[in-house]
Amino acid sequence: MTENHHTDVSVLGLGAMGGALAGALVKAGLRTTVWNRSAGKADQLVAQGATEAASAAEAVRASRLLITCLFDHDSVHEVLDPLVDDLAGRTLINVTTTKPEQARQLAAWAAEAGISYLDGGIMAVPSMIGQPGAAILYSGSEEVFREHAALLDLWGTSTYYGEDAGLASLYDFALLSSMYVMFAGFMHGAAMLAPAGVPAGRFAKMAAPWLTAMTGELARYAEVIDGGDYTVPGQQSLEFSNLGLFIETSTEQGVSAEPIAMVQRLIQRQVDAGHGAEGFARIIESIKHPAA
Amino acid sequence: MTENHHTDVSVLGLGAMGGALAGALVKAGLRTTVWNRSAGKADQLVAQGATEAASAAEAVRASRLLITCLFDHDSVHEVLDPLVDDLAGRTLINVTTTKPEQARQLAAWAAEAGISYLDGGIMAVPSMIGQPGAAILYSGSEEVFREHAALLDLWGTSTYYGEDAGLASLYDFALLSSMYVMFAGFMHGAAMLAPAGVPAGRFAKMAAPWLTAMTGELARYAEVIDGGDYTVPGQQSLEFSNLGLFIETSTEQGVSAEPIAMVQRLIQRQVDAGHGAEGFARIIESIKHPAA
Repeated sequence: MTENHHTDVSVLGLGAMGGALAGALVKAGLRTTVWNRSAGKADQLVAQGATEAASAAEAVRASRLLITCLFDHDSVHEVLDPLVDDLAGRTLINVTTTKPEQARQLAAWAAEAGISYLDGGIMAVPSMIGQPGAAILYSGSEEVFREHAALLDLWGTSTYYGEDAGLASLYDFALLSSMYVMFAGFMHGAAMLAPAGVPAGRFAKMAAPWLTAMTGELARYAEVIDGGDYTVPGQQSLEFSNLGLFIETSTEQGVSAEPIAMVQRLIQRQVDAGHGAEGFARIIESIKHPAA
Repeated sequence: MTENHHTDVSVLGLGAMGGALAGALVKAGLRTTVWNRSAGKADQLVAQGATEAASAAEAVRASRLLITCLFDHDSVHEVLDPLVDDLAGRTLINVTTTKPEQARQLAAWAAEAGISYLDGGIMAVPSMIGQPGAAILYSGSEEVFREHAALLDLWGTSTYYGEDAGLASLYDFALLSSMYVMFAGFMHGAAMLAPAGVPAGRFAKMAAPWLTAMTGELARYAEVIDGGDYTVPGQQSLEFSNLGLFIETSTEQGVSAEPIAMVQRLIQRQVDAGHGAEGFARIIESIKHPAA
């Protein structure tokens, strides 16, 4: 062991997520160096056996393997750019939330600096870290992913998506986006029912199994989309999916129609373009080709 | 048996759904009269044992129990208003898709005319009719619901929501609205991934279990909403749920950000009103209180 690698891994960034990631490593017995820009975040980890670095430079020098879980893309550059000479030859697994383009930019920056780079997207809240239900998506260096598979599996279920470092983030954003939109749809239903005295809890008990059942339709829509023919028989047509009554009912209930009006606009653009008799899956074309 | 009741039930409206409902009754051995405004829709049902009525009046006079599954609320009035004298003393189960206010109006009209009225909302496609997976929501006369429970169960799983005839439609619309919004969220994710060469089918395989897992959050959000305190600890804050990166990524992928931008607007209105540190469930307040 050289002075340069006196711990196995260094974790830079000890917010709620970074702290949970570092905690899982310490718990598994890895010699772990931790660092956070503001003080006090490392205390609990140190009590569990981690070593606190006095500076980012010290944290970088402590281990060959570095994990960054910082505020955003800019933070990664702010912390690491001044240390680029120390970073050469090391491995960086960056799980900071970044856009796909930012992950690609970091991968290019890392290649330039002689750093092996793997990008991660975490599909979990901090309390889920360490359980199989925490899905973590990776892309970038496959070599890094394979070499550190055992460590990554300490955090959750790891999946590798490809050498394009932006892919993990892109899958992450696609899944999270669909989740947020689903949540807004639930809120809309709950808001419609509220004036009738229906508690949100009662609606949640109905909506959770209902939406779960309806996820069964996604593969069918995908088949139509990937087939490229929205006229295949047996589909609900866009014309049939006229959501005007839903919008009127929202207004009559005194609530905003925004979530369902968004869907109606996607439908309407396809109907206006002459595709009203085609299947509902065609609304993806309104998203693939934004309105001018 | 009198001339007035020579069959058990009459079904008015034989579109895809009305035809499926009538088919289930015929299959169960009920003496069924069927009628449709345009010709030819009854042929298959007649071959299975149904009796075709030459007019709506004949269909109404044939049975004490009437089922209407027509195009819309106006169609119900167009077909039944001229027959109001024949309708007195009969029972009407109307499963035509109507808004809650329209269902309430029909219930009032029926009460005036001496008709027992039950309103139904069908959470199923026609091919599901006759299976337990077809959920059918009812509201209006509880007496009608109880008296005809055995018949209603021939169509699927029946649930009664209360004497307010608009409730079935309101629950129906709330559930369907949340479904359509979820579908749009899926389409957005699939559209984001498409430029990276990811087939929609691959995303559907990930999104279906992911969204299913995330429906587990709905009860938690509902608890916060029903509790009326969005500051309870342990929630993801609205400020943390800044979806700007998702919108930028959509644009960078060349696709529309509309679905996620809708969610961001709901968040932003609460942040602007000074609630940024409160929980994500608070977006329901943006829906309950529409923007001016």
